[in-house]
Amino acid sequence: MLDSVPSLTRLIAELGRLPGVGRKTATRLAFFILQQPEGETQALARALADVKQRVMFCSQCYHVTETDPCLFCRAPDRDEALLCVVEQPQDLLAIERGGGFHGRYHVLHGALSPLDGIGPDALRIPQLIERVKRTGIREVLVATNFTMEGEATALYLSRLLRDFPVRVTRLAHGIPMGGDLEYLDSQTLSGALARRYEIES
Amino acid sequence: MLDSVPSLTRLIAELGRLPGVGRKTATRLAFFILQQPEGETQALARALADVKQRVMFCSQCYHVTETDPCLFCRAPDRDEALLCVVEQPQDLLAIERGGGFHGRYHVLHGALSPLDGIGPDALRIPQLIERVKRTGIREVLVATNFTMEGEATALYLSRLLRDFPVRVTRLAHGIPMGGDLEYLDSQTLSGALARRYEIES
Repeated sequence: MLDSVPSLTRLIAELGRLPGVGRKTATRLAFFILQQPEGETQALARALADVKQRVMFCSQCYHVTETDPCLFCRAPDRDEALLCVVEQPQDLLAIERGGGFHGRYHVLHGALSPLDGIGPDALRIPQLIERVKRTGIREVLVATNFTMEGEATALYLSRLLRDFPVRVTRLAHGIPMGGDLEYLDSQTLSGALARRYEIES
Repeated sequence: MLDSVPSLTRLIAELGRLPGVGRKTATRLAFFILQQPEGETQALARALADVKQRVMFCSQCYHVTETDPCLFCRAPDRDEALLCVVEQPQDLLAIERGGGFHGRYHVLHGALSPLDGIGPDALRIPQLIERVKRTGIREVLVATNFTMEGEATALYLSRLLRDFPVRVTRLAHGIPMGGDLEYLDSQTLSGALARRYEIES
């Protein structure tokens, strides 16, 4: 029915490739874009082109950046001896939002998933080992997700780093702030029970 | 925290202007775009630019089109005497999907809304009157939405067209297919009760 408007059909198809955008949403977005002033749409098109041209991965930590090394690798006041390993740049940003971490980062760009053909060489794991060898890192905090793949990656890294003079740590498991026991999964709950601690009063 | 990646920050801001896209979704989309092959992103940027350059409004019915007059105004087998008035191009497409209409269309590009400063001249109402004057239209089916604004527009049009030799009709109100009486609003229900009809058997 949009046969006579091929450019609109194509925009709907392109928007529909984005994650979480189905055909209905893509159509709604396309009609919105059609009704926007031309400048707004140009700004979006330019932002798309710019991001692909300007953003690269930091040569040290593989976080996204426009200047190499990135902000976190350049900062003089961060602890060189403490390295936090995350799956994705978004995870790094989440930890930064938390505000409690002042070491350096290393972004793997994924987690081990043999079924999907993602082995250690598809991730920035060789580069991580190089970094541990080369620099004075004393603790590697593995902050991969608490999923099957994230846990497997953490276990793999802890074995790989066993022969190096570093502590390999993991974020604490347990019941999240505001967590309601009734709705928690049984694994989290039984784990929290096993790792219960004395109340200091 | 994305200070060192201004192009990414800008893309997130631009995506965040789209309807229904909040900051979290915009960030997710931006990181997805960052990880896509460059060709895919270029295709999206080009589709955005193309749609603004190529799509125009049909000079007869004001539907979106790349060729003037549009597909529906060019079709030789459509009833010239029956004109369906809709608020938006999307509404026209919805009616076409239904498949029961074989007349012509007229797209108003909105509905009357005095509180938002949208009067008859902000819509394609003068052009509609011209069309009714000029051509052999015998029925104007007002298919504006069943909202306050859509109803007001329908009433306004019916008064405006009173002096012309045309029937002014409206889509039937009632209970939609699959409608569950328990969850219907009382206005629809009382209206459907008032307009009840004899079962033909």
